[in-house]
Amino acid sequence: MSDAVGCEMKFGVFLPPSAQNNPKEKLPVLYFLSGLTCTEANFTQKSGFQRYAAEHNLIVVNPDTSPRGLSIEGEDDSYDFGSGAGFYLDATEEKWKKNYRMYSYIVDELLSVVAANFAVDTSKQGITGHSMGGHGALTIALKNPGTFASVSAFAPISNPMECPWGVKAFTGYLGSDRSTWAKYDATHLVKEYNGPPLDVLVDQGDQDDFLKNGQLLPDNLLTASVGTKVKLQLRMQEGYDHSYFFISTFIGDHIQHHATHLNKKN
Amino acid sequence: MSDAVGCEMKFGVFLPPSAQNNPKEKLPVLYFLSGLTCTEANFTQKSGFQRYAAEHNLIVVNPDTSPRGLSIEGEDDSYDFGSGAGFYLDATEEKWKKNYRMYSYIVDELLSVVAANFAVDTSKQGITGHSMGGHGALTIALKNPGTFASVSAFAPISNPMECPWGVKAFTGYLGSDRSTWAKYDATHLVKEYNGPPLDVLVDQGDQDDFLKNGQLLPDNLLTASVGTKVKLQLRMQEGYDHSYFFISTFIGDHIQHHATHLNKKN
Repeated sequence: MSDAVGCEMKFGVFLPPSAQNNPKEKLPVLYFLSGLTCTEANFTQKSGFQRYAAEHNLIVVNPDTSPRGLSIEGEDDSYDFGSGAGFYLDATEEKWKKNYRMYSYIVDELLSVVAANFAVDTSKQGITGHSMGGHGALTIALKNPGTFASVSAFAPISNPMECPWGVKAFTGYLGSDRSTWAKYDATHLVKEYNGPPLDVLVDQGDQDDFLKNGQLLPDNLLTASVGTKVKLQLRMQEGYDHSYFFISTFIGDHIQHHATHLNKKN
Repeated sequence: MSDAVGCEMKFGVFLPPSAQNNPKEKLPVLYFLSGLTCTEANFTQKSGFQRYAAEHNLIVVNPDTSPRGLSIEGEDDSYDFGSGAGFYLDATEEKWKKNYRMYSYIVDELLSVVAANFAVDTSKQGITGHSMGGHGALTIALKNPGTFASVSAFAPISNPMECPWGVKAFTGYLGSDRSTWAKYDATHLVKEYNGPPLDVLVDQGDQDDFLKNGQLLPDNLLTASVGTKVKLQLRMQEGYDHSYFFISTFIGDHIQHHATHLNKKN
């Protein structure tokens, strides 16, 4: 039972073989935040991350994308709002503000629950995610300087205030006053970031329909990051779309990126 | 539209990058037959085979597991008979004999359709599969000596005449006269095999509940193969169950096995 969102919340935890052999050794941990419509299961079943996490000796934690089964009117009406679409923010609109608090769930609750129950080295935490979850990974990392020593994203919603998915979600959860939106927008947050330097790896498929339809806007994030303490590497991957085949192709590179940065921190 | 089974049939085809670069070069092909309840999609989405097939330059073809949507009474009543459970045989019982002809569909139709539409080297065909599909791969290879130059299986139903799944399926599709069953039972077929020598790789998880419940019986197949032209390597994999995580862990080894044997054939 989650205090932050007021319902049961599921998440996946992968422990590498060394955690069995030496259960007391504290290991680095990588959080993966999923995209619209996903539960915690998609990443576990489709990405093939396990091979790379085992190789690099990382614990991997993958939470669900929203509260579930609360019987809030409208909660299940669309794929991009409500169930499966929590957008990793704390809602302020009356109908949603009690439960749609995925930002607090991740930052204040999940990290503590994981640290209390598994042998994780909390000085070596990384975060990544896909699409809406890429937005979540970027904004959570940027809003909590020092918490995550490594950050990456797959096809993130990079500038939600300027794309249809973001405008719909932010209007619904935060209301129509746009001045409250910027604190959940990576392109705005990156300009204000003043924590430890971050190397952020972002992969984006160039045949991604959501890129073509202006939902992702990674160029805006890249432009905004210039001259900040965030060094963003944006790789356009030829021929790839928005699917888990894209994730499974590059998850090895991302885990390598996290392992390198987390193991630097000694 | 399939002539063999009388309905539309879907299958997946993976072409490695070299097929794009040099579309006329004929490549080896590996057939993957799926298990109970699966469609053609599970293997594509969950096994992570693509990385290895690309590396070894193999075409991979993965068919569905039964005819679909025929409105035969009882077709959708259970997970282990009818839809999703064709057992790669040609039914003889009245109700099923017109459409449940997955053996003929694979052997007489799919191989020809693939050869006619893709640049495959039909002297270099391999076959593998999981569970019911492992049974399919083994029996189809053993019944068609010389057609497949390499064979493997993941947790195959190795002796269906002696296990509950097999007895239910064979009674339903073939009738109660057990003398007609042996021609679809790998443990019987292996003793009669008189084709080119075959190195067969079989992986089996030792924590597989279906192994424990006597559905798979790989020991019977191994014992039966001794002294035949089939050299069976049965690897018991510690801690693995019957899931796609088991397949995704060892699919690289299997594709390596097929690539080695297919590329020997020059």
